[in-house]
Amino acid sequence: VTTPEFTLCDGLRAAREDRADSPAARLAFPRLAREFGTPLYVYDRGVIETQYDALRSAFAARFRRLRIFYAVKANTNVALIRFLHRRGAGAEVVSRGETFLSRTAGVPPGAILFSSSSKSPDEIADAVANGILLNVDSMDELEQIAEQASSAATTAAISFRVNPGVDPDTLHKINTGISESKFGVHLEGGLALEAYRRAAALPGLRIAGLHAHVGSQIVDPAGHVETLRRLLAFARELKERLGVVLDFVDVGGGLGIPYEDGQKVMSADDLAAALAPVWSEGTRALGYEPELWVEPGRFFVGPSGVLLARVNSVKRTPVRTFLNVDAGFNTLMRPSMYGAYHRVRVVGRAAPDEIVDVAGDVCETGDLLAEGRRLPRAAAGDLVVFLDAGAYGFAMTSEYNARPLPAEVLVDGDEAVLIRRRGTFEELLRSQIPPGRFS
Amino acid sequence: VTTPEFTLCDGLRAAREDRADSPAARLAFPRLAREFGTPLYVYDRGVIETQYDALRSAFAARFRRLRIFYAVKANTNVALIRFLHRRGAGAEVVSRGETFLSRTAGVPPGAILFSSSSKSPDEIADAVANGILLNVDSMDELEQIAEQASSAATTAAISFRVNPGVDPDTLHKINTGISESKFGVHLEGGLALEAYRRAAALPGLRIAGLHAHVGSQIVDPAGHVETLRRLLAFARELKERLGVVLDFVDVGGGLGIPYEDGQKVMSADDLAAALAPVWSEGTRALGYEPELWVEPGRFFVGPSGVLLARVNSVKRTPVRTFLNVDAGFNTLMRPSMYGAYHRVRVVGRAAPDEIVDVAGDVCETGDLLAEGRRLPRAAAGDLVVFLDAGAYGFAMTSEYNARPLPAEVLVDGDEAVLIRRRGTFEELLRSQIPPGRFS
Repeated sequence: VTTPEFTLCDGLRAAREDRADSPAARLAFPRLAREFGTPLYVYDRGVIETQYDALRSAFAARFRRLRIFYAVKANTNVALIRFLHRRGAGAEVVSRGETFLSRTAGVPPGAILFSSSSKSPDEIADAVANGILLNVDSMDELEQIAEQASSAATTAAISFRVNPGVDPDTLHKINTGISESKFGVHLEGGLALEAYRRAAALPGLRIAGLHAHVGSQIVDPAGHVETLRRLLAFARELKERLGVVLDFVDVGGGLGIPYEDGQKVMSADDLAAALAPVWSEGTRALGYEPELWVEPGRFFVGPSGVLLARVNSVKRTPVRTFLNVDAGFNTLMRPSMYGAYHRVRVVGRAAPDEIVDVAGDVCETGDLLAEGRRLPRAAAGDLVVFLDAGAYGFAMTSEYNARPLPAEVLVDGDEAVLIRRRGTFEELLRSQIPPGRFS
Repeated sequence: VTTPEFTLCDGLRAAREDRADSPAARLAFPRLAREFGTPLYVYDRGVIETQYDALRSAFAARFRRLRIFYAVKANTNVALIRFLHRRGAGAEVVSRGETFLSRTAGVPPGAILFSSSSKSPDEIADAVANGILLNVDSMDELEQIAEQASSAATTAAISFRVNPGVDPDTLHKINTGISESKFGVHLEGGLALEAYRRAAALPGLRIAGLHAHVGSQIVDPAGHVETLRRLLAFARELKERLGVVLDFVDVGGGLGIPYEDGQKVMSADDLAAALAPVWSEGTRALGYEPELWVEPGRFFVGPSGVLLARVNSVKRTPVRTFLNVDAGFNTLMRPSMYGAYHRVRVVGRAAPDEIVDVAGDVCETGDLLAEGRRLPRAAAGDLVVFLDAGAYGFAMTSEYNARPLPAEVLVDGDEAVLIRRRGTFEELLRSQIPPGRFS
């Protein structure tokens, strides 16, 4: 066994650092493409570890009673859920399917928080039966949960997701804490207080906590700070007016990551430092210290992942130049759906010298993965790397245009482990019933 | 056997005609939900037949040499592909997966047209090996096809998709014929002429036709008319300058359907009537009559389909009222992705009396399936129907938020046949590799 000059992780790092023409990158990506094919999601285990540890250290240094949850929707691969769980994270889930995947990954029911604005009767029944904490989103849902718990002769632990009326100034589509949002029971107008009052009166329920989540990809702590201030003030109201003492206050997730070169975002340390004085002051006034819960998703897994794709053809038109790749918005939805930006590297090519659009292989004009980028001159067969694709990448993939789903690989040092095999053409038929006499 | 008072199709029709509180609708939808669950895609076979026959009659009456293709990407269920193929339609496909599904549905290679802006080497090889017509999108791709055909010692039949520089005034994201689009070789600047010249010189290729497609959901014939005019003028140029005689001219698809009450859209007859004089004049000048090809997708299957969902909860906030349903943008992508409008009916409720948002169960603020609709007052457990969901409905579904894919049912008279079973939680793991030592 010889030690390789450069490991796969060296190649991934080189791409992140804009050295995709370096020997490390020229070794790593062709090797990954050869072994696993394209399009391919590749996650760097060390980066997940770094991100998780950074957040844990930042918060553990300032909050005595802390619980960290991984917001599973960012990436539902059981290998990642399991990895984060083993480091100490619970699972914040939004569906029975995510509960199922988290349980498969080894997360016990007591470390799962179920949060969603629209829970089906089946999802409520499953959570109640398995003792999973339900984060309640409306009065209607509260009644359904109480009824389910009573009919199952058990007690459901609940919190409410409240709408704090805070605008964290992120993309509109992923703003969840503003007043118009579909999420949460409004603090405004005493609605949240009324909800807790009703919960305290209903049989079959145990009030465990208080939750808010003001959005995704937030780059400044101000929104979280204001939210925590309001949550703690409301916790005091709950104690004084209803005698409710909370096990936890959950400040949500939403920590942004830098998608663009030079983009300034708050660090986990920035956020923890900004929250700490509010917490000290607020819990002192409250007279007791609940657990602080925090539930990032993107922050843990986003920077670890890249999407590796191959150039099918290069097309020069009088107006634009297109790199046509073998991935599309069915592979990476964020650019088409949110106008999101992912850095793009061309493997093994130096010196940016033309402005191109990176076009997907979905048969729609809107399927552009990157627009107007200055990139090295590429040719058919070249590999391109989309950075920061670990969160809301694979999770949002579809078989649109009848393209099988991509594979996923977890890399550590120089080893790559397939954690999801590539989809197949036959799988496109997996649930279709052979045409009968109607057709 | 007793004849039911109302058939399932009566119920579907009632929903389309805004009589979702009628006895027919009150019978049909609860029965479908009970038997197949929700969320559920339901297609009315008779509507597909009517749409197909309307287009065929309108065109066959005016064009002597006609071929109709179904743009499979609109809905890739093999039952629908097969149904349309048996009525005479070929398959217009955009991927090897769609070729596979079309072949499974019984479409022979000679009735398949492969059109995509980004074809992988594997897709090119498969099409060449199976004698599937390739609609070429760039010079780079042309060279690859010629090389593939030569190395396989065969001849590949090709057409070019040209970019005619026509703006059909549809949604920007689905405009494909404008100059900035990623699709087609530009007529502008002599690029398309150069492409045909090169194709005529390369070994292994047979020039079969000429193609343009200016967009989707087009409601006025003007764009198609101008496109056909330019295609025929260019066909004349091809004949005169290169001696190329075409088997066919393909004017694309893109016929819109009315998504809103009272929305005016061109009929198939409107389009055929508008194209006919351009065709007569153009082919007279051309000196021969190629086949006219047309390739609708949405027009055939869109109006036939509904998405049936159930209200999980109703939430009244100080700002808005939300019907939280058990479907989201993972079930019906068009509203979130394109801002598209689908009519919504509440089954068994009369008299619209409140303004609501219909919110999906995806954990994102942008997941609203309908906004600001005046609907009857609904309650948890009620069924809601999204109309015109037969095209780009199931095709764009994903397992985002770890929700299994919905089922599909084809209805004829009073019979409902499952044509795709519901996804399962276990399927979420179908391709995941059990976590190894890395996690």
